[in-house]
Amino acid sequence: MINSDAVIYDVVGIGNAIVDVLAKVGDGFLSERNLPKSEMILLEAKDAGKIYTDIVPEREVSGGSAANTVAGLASLGAATAFIGKVHDDELGQEFSRDIGAAGIDFFTPPLIQGPSTGRSIVLVTPDAERSMFTYLGASEKLSEEDIDENIIKAGKIIYLEGYLWDKDDAKKAMVKACELAHKHNRKVAFSLSDKSVIKRHREEFLKLVKEEVDILFGNEEEIKVLFEEEDFYKTLEMLKPDVEIAAITRNAQGSAIVNGRTITFVEAEKVENVVDTTGAGDLFAAGFLYGIINGRSLGTCAIIGSIAAAEVISHYGARPEVSLRGFVRKKLLEYGKRP
Amino acid sequence: MINSDAVIYDVVGIGNAIVDVLAKVGDGFLSERNLPKSEMILLEAKDAGKIYTDIVPEREVSGGSAANTVAGLASLGAATAFIGKVHDDELGQEFSRDIGAAGIDFFTPPLIQGPSTGRSIVLVTPDAERSMFTYLGASEKLSEEDIDENIIKAGKIIYLEGYLWDKDDAKKAMVKACELAHKHNRKVAFSLSDKSVIKRHREEFLKLVKEEVDILFGNEEEIKVLFEEEDFYKTLEMLKPDVEIAAITRNAQGSAIVNGRTITFVEAEKVENVVDTTGAGDLFAAGFLYGIINGRSLGTCAIIGSIAAAEVISHYGARPEVSLRGFVRKKLLEYGKRP
Repeated sequence: MINSDAVIYDVVGIGNAIVDVLAKVGDGFLSERNLPKSEMILLEAKDAGKIYTDIVPEREVSGGSAANTVAGLASLGAATAFIGKVHDDELGQEFSRDIGAAGIDFFTPPLIQGPSTGRSIVLVTPDAERSMFTYLGASEKLSEEDIDENIIKAGKIIYLEGYLWDKDDAKKAMVKACELAHKHNRKVAFSLSDKSVIKRHREEFLKLVKEEVDILFGNEEEIKVLFEEEDFYKTLEMLKPDVEIAAITRNAQGSAIVNGRTITFVEAEKVENVVDTTGAGDLFAAGFLYGIINGRSLGTCAIIGSIAAAEVISHYGARPEVSLRGFVRKKLLEYGKRP
Repeated sequence: MINSDAVIYDVVGIGNAIVDVLAKVGDGFLSERNLPKSEMILLEAKDAGKIYTDIVPEREVSGGSAANTVAGLASLGAATAFIGKVHDDELGQEFSRDIGAAGIDFFTPPLIQGPSTGRSIVLVTPDAERSMFTYLGASEKLSEEDIDENIIKAGKIIYLEGYLWDKDDAKKAMVKACELAHKHNRKVAFSLSDKSVIKRHREEFLKLVKEEVDILFGNEEEIKVLFEEEDFYKTLEMLKPDVEIAAITRNAQGSAIVNGRTITFVEAEKVENVVDTTGAGDLFAAGFLYGIINGRSLGTCAIIGSIAAAEVISHYGARPEVSLRGFVRKKLLEYGKRP
């Protein structure tokens, strides 16, 4: 469908195609069931079903980490494409509609048999933290054939999520995407995604970060797990030789951006009422990459990321509910920055 | 001599016009005479004479903090002017020749009577630290009349040194320069210069920084004295509301750049053989401002500053001995940055 040498996309995202099932739960819900907090746990369909019977689903909204990021980028005005696998079922059609409505090119053919579209039960506690229990479903069937060389070479930046590393086929697809990106001199951005994913694949992630990744996203906890190092400032120094840019978020403490011989600490955008932190990291990445695409300084990239994250944590769900383009411009003007 | 609304200069420096008398001394020289190390002490002519008789002067070279900075900027290729007061004596003529040879416009009329041209005895200990004993001489006769509105409005950035604050006439000249700069919508850059100067004028400096200064230069020790705060990271937070940009140097530990909601830590350029640290801060400021003028990111500004400082501390004297333009470009290319 795409066949030219032109760069058409600012960012091509590759990730799990997931629909989020949101539910508010009390503080005891997780501990009573021995469920870990603030992480992403993979479940088989039947185990997901068990949690599902205990909750009152609030809303179903399209999610998936990289998909959220490209949705944020699209809302900011960037040209984007998404590669990910749904089943041609009701949820899959909903996911595809949302992606299309956001103006994101999405050409990956859906499954017509096999597992149903992936879903994630997102339990939001009163402190706005989210704990995710995910049935990958069709997502894990993403394969090398789905990585279209023409789409990869049409993107300036290829953005991958660490969550994909859990399944062999999807992992192979990621490796192919990295190879093609570098073959065509494109940048590879990678999100560490989650502590438990890193624990499962630490050595492979270290190698990936060192050899393939140009722009790394993660949070303070993730980077500590990756390097098995408790001193945050030491992890930042450790990142310097490995990646061109690392953007590490720290919730209300803002972010730290590592680039060559510089480390920049950027304050977080203040949010009066944090409702649901789902998507905070995804939208930070969206704003940050939007800054990169537009040649902004790394400090301003992080400020844009922080503004985008602030929007998404002020409501339920991990996709923006306003046009981020105007939202970010207005804030930048308030800060005396070029919009 | 300049009469138009056009911006002609990247930077107009205002400061003491001083000739440095360099001498190497052993570690005991300072302690035996109860002379403080690594500071700048003001002397009357006769006291300067006493130190002078004990040393073997190595070289006389043009100095002065702001003058060194504009010399660095000129060497980088920036358009500069200098305002400062010499006597029309041999040293004054030497100072003027050096400034002219560097391509810096210098129109301040020299004294034809009164104190002779200022000089600073710079004692360099084996650890490359410099301790300065300064007779201001003609320098302190800089007055409001020397601040030509046409030159101020012809500059994008007006750069002032804190050393000037020690004398009433020179201080009034500084205040006038700030007023004119803001009247014509120019940026005011200010160097804190020295711990002992800050101690003498702490309250005034705080007010100046808050009300007049857009770009502040200083080192870790100076900023701690200014805020009477021992925690360096706290001083950086304290700078955020006061100035648009603060560039704080930390010797081999690099620099910290404060700007709005961001603080960037930048590694120092490695120098194999540090010979004489005189002018390190002045040349850092030169490189940093050169970056600002050229719209570089603050991290890159600090890297350029660090490269310029590295050149000047690798030899005796506080003015560059090579064309900084080529020197910096070569290093930036090595670091994979646009030259």
